[in-house]
Amino acid sequence: MPLARIDFRKGKPSDFGRKVGEIVYRTMVEIINVPEKDIFQVIAEHDADGLIYSPDYLDIERTDDVIFIQLTLSRGRSVELKQAFYKALAENLNQALNVRPEDIFINLVEVEKENWSFGNGIAQYVL
Amino acid sequence: MPLARIDFRKGKPSDFGRKVGEIVYRTMVEIINVPEKDIFQVIAEHDADGLIYSPDYLDIERTDDVIFIQLTLSRGRSVELKQAFYKALAENLNQALNVRPEDIFINLVEVEKENWSFGNGIAQYVL
Amino acid sequence: MPLARIDFRKGKPSDFGRKVGEIVYRTMVEIINVPEKDIFQVIAEHDADGLIYSPDYLDIERTDDVIFIQLTLSRGRSVELKQAFYKALAENLNQALNVRPEDIFINLVEVEKENWSFGNGIAQYVL
Repeated sequence: MPLARIDFRKGKPSDFGRKVGEIVYRTMVEIINVPEKDIFQVIAEHDADGLIYSPDYLDIERTDDVIFIQLTLSRGRSVELKQAFYKALAENLNQALNVRPEDIFINLVEVEKENWSFGNGIAQYVL
Repeated sequence: MPLARIDFRKGKPSDFGRKVGEIVYRTMVEIINVPEKDIFQVIAEHDADGLIYSPDYLDIERTDDVIFIQLTLSRGRSVELKQAFYKALAENLNQALNVRPEDIFINLVEVEKENWSFGNGIAQYVL
Repeated sequence: MPLARIDFRKGKPSDFGRKVGEIVYRTMVEIINVPEKDIFQVIAEHDADGLIYSPDYLDIERTDDVIFIQLTLSRGRSVELKQAFYKALAENLNQALNVRPEDIFINLVEVEKENWSFGNGIAQYVL
């Protein structure tokens, strides 16, 4: 269900975005009850003019290695679950890909369950 | 009002995205009461690393011909209307462009009526 | 907090997108209480097949200079504040970059405060 949009600056190895996506997916499965195999992601690299970030908003020091992760997902996770997800995702990206935790920007957009069709013109989450 | 983001893999004819967009627009007009001429779309092609999809989530067999269609639109359509829209969109894309119904991924993001300005710095839907 | 996605047709000076982004940011700070330094933007140029717009929806004459500005931000601004923002943004883009007000398309997507992590795996807006 989540549709992920992942954006970062050019200059990474060619499989970097895919690896970030795998970790985003795996962390969603582990922490916020996303089903196995539910992976739909748009991953884009940008030159310097295409991805603009604050180097110090909230006194967090960001670099050109910043990654924007915007996830559209169904409504209903608690604040505590979202917090656990951010924490786990930052840890997992840091451990697996050496991304600085300061460089991980995450935003969630929540929608109703009937707002998804995964194929065949059917709203699969409507019972 | 809807802002459509349409994403698919490279390798299609150059006018493929535009044709998909026309069918998305036409189906919105026919099924979910979108006004005539209300067409605003961002269409992007991706290489294999830029668009990641599950080949079998919910036992639907997807291929590299998968199309992600994410529509931001005003809140207020019923579940039944959304279901009718998914069904019609899959049928129309299949009939016009031979897209497999399994390869059509749709997501709706709903916003308030005052969240749109169509030009001139005015919120045209606020009465 | 706002994550801005800014899309327009190719053919502008290389710093055009960045300048548009600066004006979007500055106007958010001035009108809708976005904090200083809170700037996160994805800016993309498109060829003619990648950005489709209505040339006359709502009798507003748009041209290939159209700019789509989609902002994801926290819920809670009043209708009046949003209206003031659209007006100021159109004026500022027109004055600074000579963008026709008719060519400025704006959409807001609102989310909860806990839907943001600005780094370090923390939901900074959760108290």
